[in-house]
Amino acid sequence: MLETRLDTARIRAARRMIAPVFLDTPLYRCEALEPVLGCAVSIKLETANPVRSFKGRGTELVAGLLAENGPRAAVCASAGNLGQALAWSGRGRGLDVTVVASRFAPATKLDRIRALDARLELVDGDFEMARERAVAIAGHEGVRLVEDSLDIETCEGAATIGLELLDSAPAFDAVLIALGGGAMATGVGHVLKTFAPGAEVICVQPSGAPAMTRSWRRQRVVTTESTDTIADGVAGRRPIPEVLDDLLLVADDAVLVEEASIIAGMGLLLDRAGLVVEPSAALGIAAILEDRARFADRHVVTIVCGGNVDAGSYRRWVGMGLDHKP
Amino acid sequence: MLETRLDTARIRAARRMIAPVFLDTPLYRCEALEPVLGCAVSIKLETANPVRSFKGRGTELVAGLLAENGPRAAVCASAGNLGQALAWSGRGRGLDVTVVASRFAPATKLDRIRALDARLELVDGDFEMARERAVAIAGHEGVRLVEDSLDIETCEGAATIGLELLDSAPAFDAVLIALGGGAMATGVGHVLKTFAPGAEVICVQPSGAPAMTRSWRRQRVVTTESTDTIADGVAGRRPIPEVLDDLLLVADDAVLVEEASIIAGMGLLLDRAGLVVEPSAALGIAAILEDRARFADRHVVTIVCGGNVDAGSYRRWVGMGLDHKP
Repeated sequence: MLETRLDTARIRAARRMIAPVFLDTPLYRCEALEPVLGCAVSIKLETANPVRSFKGRGTELVAGLLAENGPRAAVCASAGNLGQALAWSGRGRGLDVTVVASRFAPATKLDRIRALDARLELVDGDFEMARERAVAIAGHEGVRLVEDSLDIETCEGAATIGLELLDSAPAFDAVLIALGGGAMATGVGHVLKTFAPGAEVICVQPSGAPAMTRSWRRQRVVTTESTDTIADGVAGRRPIPEVLDDLLLVADDAVLVEEASIIAGMGLLLDRAGLVVEPSAALGIAAILEDRARFADRHVVTIVCGGNVDAGSYRRWVGMGLDHKP
Repeated sequence: MLETRLDTARIRAARRMIAPVFLDTPLYRCEALEPVLGCAVSIKLETANPVRSFKGRGTELVAGLLAENGPRAAVCASAGNLGQALAWSGRGRGLDVTVVASRFAPATKLDRIRALDARLELVDGDFEMARERAVAIAGHEGVRLVEDSLDIETCEGAATIGLELLDSAPAFDAVLIALGGGAMATGVGHVLKTFAPGAEVICVQPSGAPAMTRSWRRQRVVTTESTDTIADGVAGRRPIPEVLDDLLLVADDAVLVEEASIIAGMGLLLDRAGLVVEPSAALGIAAILEDRARFADRHVVTIVCGGNVDAGSYRRWVGMGLDHKP
C-alpha cells in the first residue's frame, strides 16, 4: 500500500460530498490531435463546469466539511482557480470566503472571484507573497486557512479524477498531469499507482517555473528566486515538503517544457480539439510535442485542467499570425 | 400523452445502446455570460466527445440496430456532423459507411469523415442535393439509408438529451434548441413536453435558412429556393412532413435570428464561456441577444450542439477585430 498522506477510502467517499457538476467529466479520444502528436490521445476535460477548472473537486470537500463543523469562514491564497472554486463552493454553503491573489493574476480570474461574492485581496507580488498574506489573515481573523496541495482535501478532491480515469477503455499507458503545487499530481498519482500501477504518471511543469520538478529530481525541496512563464496556474517557487514526499511516491517522471511548446499546445487544442485552455492545461500536449519518440504509438491521457484565460492574452498567444497545421 | 412518432420507453432504452462517451454530457450554469444576456444561462455541452456534436446519440442507435439485424452498410446525406457520427458509430461495429455531403461543407467536417474510414462522396450542390444522391445510392446498392430527422433513431437518440435535462437543478424556464431538420427539436421537445410541460421549448433557426420555422408557423411544409447562412449544420430547404407534424406538437415557439447575432453568440461563448462552437451551436445565444426582454430574469438552457468549425473561418468570425465585451 502506498504510504502517501492520501487515503483511498476517503477519496471514494469524497465523491459523495462533491457537487455532481464537477464529477464524471468528459473523457474521450481526440483523434484529430493524433496525426500531429504521433500517439493516441485521450482528453480528460475539467473545464466544462461553473468555475472552468478541476479545483471545485477539492473546494467542495473543504467547504462541505466547514459547513458541517468548522468555522463559517475561510481564506486561501490562489493563482486564480482555487479562489474561484472556493468562492463557488463557499457561496453555496453560506461561508465567508477571502481570496488573496497576485495583482498580476489574469484579470478574468480576479473578476470571476469577485463575481462569486468572495472578498478579494490583492498583493503586489507573486503567488508566494499571496500565501504569506493568507496565513497572516487566517491567524488574525481566526478563519480556516485553505492551503492548496498541503490540505489533504485539495489532493483527495483532485484524486477523484483518478478514480474516473480507471474506467477508461481502452486502458492508457501514461497520464500527463500539470504540476504546480502538486495537489492534482499527488491525487491522481495516488489513485493510479494504487489501482493501475502500470500506467506511467508523468508530471509536466514549465521550464520557467521548475521548483517542484527540480525538487522531485533531487528528492529534496528546491526553491527558485522567481518564475517566468505564461502558465500562471502552476507558477510556484516554494514546494511544500509534505507534498514533495507524496510526489516522490507516486510520480514516475517530472518533465519541464518550454513556453513555445505550451503555446503550440494551446493552439493545437484550439484548432484540432476545439478547446480553449489556459496555459497550464496545455502542459501535457507540450510534453508530447517535445518528446514525440517517448510517446509514439502509446495511449496517453492528458488532463485539461483549466480554461480561465484573459481573452486578449489568449488571442495573442494562439492568434492570427500562427498556423498550427502540421 | 403526446402523439408524436417518438416513444418514451424507447428513448429510455436508447441510453443502453449509446456509447457512454456521448451520454451525461456537462450541464452547468455559466454565470460569466449572464451580465451580458440578462438571464440565468445553463449550457448543455454536446461537443466534448469524439465527434464534437450531439449526433453520436442517434448514430449509435442506428449502427447498433444495424449491427444486430440489418445490412452491414449504410449511407447518409450530411451537412458534416451526422456523417462524422455515423462513420464513428459504424467503424466501431464493422459497418461500411458512405456519407454524401456538399463540397461546400466545412473542410474540417469532410476531413474528419474521411479520417473515420467512411467513404465520402461530394455533390456539387447543397444538402438537399446530397439527400437526393444518398437516396439513389441506397436504392442502387441496397444499403440502409439513414435520413436525419426522418429516421426515428436520430430523433430518439437526440431525445436522450432531454432525459438528462430533466435532472437539472434549479429547474429551467426555457430551452433553446437549434432547428435544422428537426431531430434535436422534436427529440428534446418530446421529452420535455411529456415530463416538464412547463418548460418552454423554443426552436432557433437562422433567418437565412428559415424553411422549417416558416413551416411551423404556417402549419404546413414551406420550402425555400436557397439558403444563406454560416450555420451550415441547419441549412436545409425542404422540411420533412412527418418531422413538422411532430414539431407542431412539441415546440412552443420557433424564432429566426440574424447572422450578426450568430457571430456575436459565437464570440460570447468563446470569450465568456471558453467554448469553441460552430455557428449552429450559437443559435440559442443569438436568440437571447435578439430578445433580451423575453428572457429577462428567467433560467434558460441552451444546447451547445456542435463544435466542428474550420479554424480559418472561425478565427475570421470571432477574430481579432471584434470586441465582445459588454
